[in-house]
Amino acid sequence: MSEALQVAVKDQETRLHESDHQSLKLWLRLLTCTSLIETRLRARLREQFDSTLPRFDFMAQLQRAPDGLTMGEISQRMMVSGGNVSGIASQLDAEGLISRSPLPDNRRTVLVKLTAKGKRSFNKMAEEHEDWIIEMLGGLPKADVDVLMSLLQKLKLGAQATSETGSDR
Amino acid sequence: MSEALQVAVKDQETRLHESDHQSLKLWLRLLTCTSLIETRLRARLREQFDSTLPRFDFMAQLQRAPDGLTMGEISQRMMVSGGNVSGIASQLDAEGLISRSPLPDNRRTVLVKLTAKGKRSFNKMAEEHEDWIIEMLGGLPKADVDVLMSLLQKLKLGAQATSETGSDR
Repeated sequence: MSEALQVAVKDQETRLHESDHQSLKLWLRLLTCTSLIETRLRARLREQFDSTLPRFDFMAQLQRAPDGLTMGEISQRMMVSGGNVSGIASQLDAEGLISRSPLPDNRRTVLVKLTAKGKRSFNKMAEEHEDWIIEMLGGLPKADVDVLMSLLQKLKLGAQATSETGSDR
Repeated sequence: MSEALQVAVKDQETRLHESDHQSLKLWLRLLTCTSLIETRLRARLREQFDSTLPRFDFMAQLQRAPDGLTMGEISQRMMVSGGNVSGIASQLDAEGLISRSPLPDNRRTVLVKLTAKGKRSFNKMAEEHEDWIIEMLGGLPKADVDVLMSLLQKLKLGAQATSETGSDR
């Protein structure tokens, strides 16, 4: 995909300023790296755990919130994979991996928690997930990682700032 | 999401080597940047063109291939967004944005091309898409962009090499 768009972009180079052109190339490279890693994570979650990234992400949200989260909170936090949050909840509930119970003081709001089985299942996946990431990224020297971390942070803050303005237009 | 996983990761820091920990942090930062930008692109494609990233991506593949692509080729190239490729093709066909015709020498294989209307429609979206990217990433100094481009390339090559081995296990 990235290569395809890159070529599309090249066809339009003449009308771009050099700085513009750079932004597009950078975005496509960022996207390629993420897609490459994500595609392999998806494949391995499927092969080894018969699971998906949205399910993994859903459970990761709950693992950091031992007191549970409402469905609204989970939706809000699941930026990456979106997915059908209530569909995922029903699946995980049917498999005994989460519990869902109405809040005592507001019975229309459902509180979701990992069950003991859910915690065990998530921890197993999380360990493998870590290993896969280390396998893919661990070869990068520490100095490179440090520079990447700081430049990506800069990129993130820049994107956040400008696009918040942009969405007000 | 990234913040959530980052916290989850922190709980497990004790069992991680420093280099392992770095890989995870790097992956989560990469994912946060990509998700942030992708989320905003999705929102704007929806608001301004009533369209989606998979549709944009599908059309981008065709725009670089004036002789057309088979459905198989399009599927293969659409790494990023996956989506339901034949569902997208039916929609775009119904809207007159692509044409689908069987190959003369193999009538079971369908060749897909952008129509003139499809080209106009894609070019409009691609121009806006460029502007959005430039708005979000254009603030990064050229020196930073250069370093990012080269380190992300290194990261990509490393991930490709190790995970190809990994999938043979």
